[in-house]
Amino acid sequence: MYFNKVSSAHLEQLKSLVGSQNIFVDQVTLQNYSHDETENLSYLPEVVIKPENTQQVSVLLKFCNENNIPVTPRGAGTGLSGGSLPVYGGISLSMEKMNKIIKLDERNLQAHVEPGVITEVLMEEAAKLNLLYPVDPSSKGSCFIGGNVAHGSGGPRVVKYGTLRDYILNLEIVLPNGDVIWTGANTLKYASGYNLTQLMIGSEGTLAVITKIVVKLIPKPQYNLVMLASFPSAESACEAVSAVFRAGMTPSALEFMERAGMEWVVKYEGIKFEIKDHVKAYLLVEVDGNNLDLLRSDCEKIGEVLFGYECDDILLGESASEKDELWMMRRKMPLSVKANSVYKEEDTVVPRAELPVLLKGIKDIGAKYGFKSVCYGHAGDGNLHVNIIKDSMSEEDWKNKLPLGIHEIMELAVKLGGTLSGEHGIGLIQQPFMNIKFSEVSLQLMRSIKNVFDPKGILNPGKMIN
Amino acid sequence: MYFNKVSSAHLEQLKSLVGSQNIFVDQVTLQNYSHDETENLSYLPEVVIKPENTQQVSVLLKFCNENNIPVTPRGAGTGLSGGSLPVYGGISLSMEKMNKIIKLDERNLQAHVEPGVITEVLMEEAAKLNLLYPVDPSSKGSCFIGGNVAHGSGGPRVVKYGTLRDYILNLEIVLPNGDVIWTGANTLKYASGYNLTQLMIGSEGTLAVITKIVVKLIPKPQYNLVMLASFPSAESACEAVSAVFRAGMTPSALEFMERAGMEWVVKYEGIKFEIKDHVKAYLLVEVDGNNLDLLRSDCEKIGEVLFGYECDDILLGESASEKDELWMMRRKMPLSVKANSVYKEEDTVVPRAELPVLLKGIKDIGAKYGFKSVCYGHAGDGNLHVNIIKDSMSEEDWKNKLPLGIHEIMELAVKLGGTLSGEHGIGLIQQPFMNIKFSEVSLQLMRSIKNVFDPKGILNPGKMIN
Repeated sequence: MYFNKVSSAHLEQLKSLVGSQNIFVDQVTLQNYSHDETENLSYLPEVVIKPENTQQVSVLLKFCNENNIPVTPRGAGTGLSGGSLPVYGGISLSMEKMNKIIKLDERNLQAHVEPGVITEVLMEEAAKLNLLYPVDPSSKGSCFIGGNVAHGSGGPRVVKYGTLRDYILNLEIVLPNGDVIWTGANTLKYASGYNLTQLMIGSEGTLAVITKIVVKLIPKPQYNLVMLASFPSAESACEAVSAVFRAGMTPSALEFMERAGMEWVVKYEGIKFEIKDHVKAYLLVEVDGNNLDLLRSDCEKIGEVLFGYECDDILLGESASEKDELWMMRRKMPLSVKANSVYKEEDTVVPRAELPVLLKGIKDIGAKYGFKSVCYGHAGDGNLHVNIIKDSMSEEDWKNKLPLGIHEIMELAVKLGGTLSGEHGIGLIQQPFMNIKFSEVSLQLMRSIKNVFDPKGILNPGKMIN
Repeated sequence: MYFNKVSSAHLEQLKSLVGSQNIFVDQVTLQNYSHDETENLSYLPEVVIKPENTQQVSVLLKFCNENNIPVTPRGAGTGLSGGSLPVYGGISLSMEKMNKIIKLDERNLQAHVEPGVITEVLMEEAAKLNLLYPVDPSSKGSCFIGGNVAHGSGGPRVVKYGTLRDYILNLEIVLPNGDVIWTGANTLKYASGYNLTQLMIGSEGTLAVITKIVVKLIPKPQYNLVMLASFPSAESACEAVSAVFRAGMTPSALEFMERAGMEWVVKYEGIKFEIKDHVKAYLLVEVDGNNLDLLRSDCEKIGEVLFGYECDDILLGESASEKDELWMMRRKMPLSVKANSVYKEEDTVVPRAELPVLLKGIKDIGAKYGFKSVCYGHAGDGNLHVNIIKDSMSEEDWKNKLPLGIHEIMELAVKLGGTLSGEHGIGLIQQPFMNIKFSEVSLQLMRSIKNVFDPKGILNPGKMIN
């Protein structure tokens, strides 16, 4: 790949194309846009551009394509795979100014939004109409829906409501040559040619830039209940997860948390919560629906299943504040882990019932390579976030031995029918593991698809596949 | 495109590659595989091949690719867009012998199946374990799941459970050069590179041949109830559809049927059912769940909504036989329409609340071009099957004027935010309308994607895009 640096002549032309008020070259801004939430990586862009509309994105991409200038699209910078890092410099294309909810279509249960809308803002606006957009990553309070689409982001409610993929109906995208198209239709069903909408979801800004999104909404359930169940062993908690579904229950969230994660949440968030000595893991279970009696009965049934797997205590959250408190322990866990130690997070996912095998394997691999890990995540989906803790590990081991251990974890996940990432994406940091999951034939298909959309390779270079 | 005819030398080589017991050249077989359920179209293949396993598909495709022999994959031949018609001759590749349910994975709520499994067979096997595969096209008793995946097939329960797209986790596919890959992972979440699984769904056998399918199953609801509501106007029935969802209800099916369709079902199926004089349309509503009292209360609430839109009568089906009878009227409608007259079926889909506008538009266009239509379909999804009835229309008008009318119907659907096909696919017969929905930029992207997978164009040539 050969790219040009952004010259002062380029910069003048860019200003005339997208307006100087949208172009930033000061060091503070460049620094701010050099990283995301992925560990402590930093790659400086040469320019940060914040377009205001599709037309500006179009002329900008066309210009960069003609001038071989790399463009790295960026949402809110909450990514955990380094997807928005401008590793080849060039332009960091921040979508933050394109943050309008264009239309909340109550008649059709749809929202038309720009990519810079914060996910929780959309959820709250929908809730005012008694509608639900159920895809809520932990970062929902700050992440953009555009980034969610680009990375195929998930969250706890996938287990009942399906993935983001099931809620994105149509996308306006800008191709690197400046062409603007809609990928599909604003319909619940679609059998009209190759599904470009679905191809864009999870393409991590490597094919085109998303400029509008049509989202499916559903009626909002009126009630929910939350339970926190404690277990004397992490494996039995994991075993209980698939048993819940086999018993015919479909909770709206089923989250797994290891003891250490809970300890750190309690410590760093200053929460009053007693972690009993023998407890090794927790499951957070949410049920939702329109009939409170039925939900209580669901909780009882789920409780019975859990007690069959060594669960020794269940806390029930009924009031809003009780439920918030229970959820907070899960939602704040990523930040508490971060506060505790240098760490590295992996996003393994396996078929649900293989979770206990995965968890045990991770611990065994850790013992072999000398690292500790704290695991939590969307157990109902088989999606386990593995937080590898640096703690007392030497810099050298962290740099040289750890990658071997992570490689083994990925091999295990793939062997169990799973994959490298459930919802964080490949981005920069999972790229070295792609050949564990994919044969050269598959990788070559992906490279060729990339080439169809972006023949000069200017969009988010250095990500996902190489 | 340049293709070779299948010579006797080719045939001998094919026999050695896939076994002579799997190769058919007799006229009866060729005739049988020359058509599907799409009106009265017929294109003779030169050879019918019924492979028994992936390896045979692989060597066969490699051979055909090297020898420029077109291959048209075929499921059960129940398609409604001509997708399985071998318009360039060559080989009709029937997947009927690859019909094993490889594994019903109760622990993970997944099924691993071959493409030739009949959809209803999978549903019934899953039901024995109290599991649900909810994607049930009208042809579920005969269609293959492989064909369902290839065409992105739907059915009535999409409205609650989502499309087929939400239930397909992973695919084994064979590329035209014989390479075999898995497209994804057996996981509920997936953010690991371009989603080749989703790209394959609805690709209509033009990219690769599907040889194994991993399907997501869900706990089967224990109860359901069915209502048949009658309306004095088709528009008010359509208006009621989106009102049901706006009232916070999510039925497991919400089907629309025009009076004439009902008359023909009664006539051709010999059903005892009184169609009152003033009734112009019906809605069939199904609710399902695990609590019968709640379902009864849901039916009441839905009833209240319907009565607000001129509904004058609701029949409730509680017993299995009552429910079957009500469903049969909807399920047999396609066959009854077929029995009544030469017809042509379109598969328009629009955002749900635009249904009344679409329906009125179709009637107006019919009046302009002199054709009658009977509409029914998955109203809850905005998916309307438009059956244009030949009746007394002259051959000349049928041939020359009708396509102009259909063109206008498609234009209207697209203008309303919809698309050409919701679940039947583009295949052969919707191809002329692709440029109504798609710009040349989009079409060129699709052609280039085709070229990535199938550079010599041997797979299902003449379909979807040209």
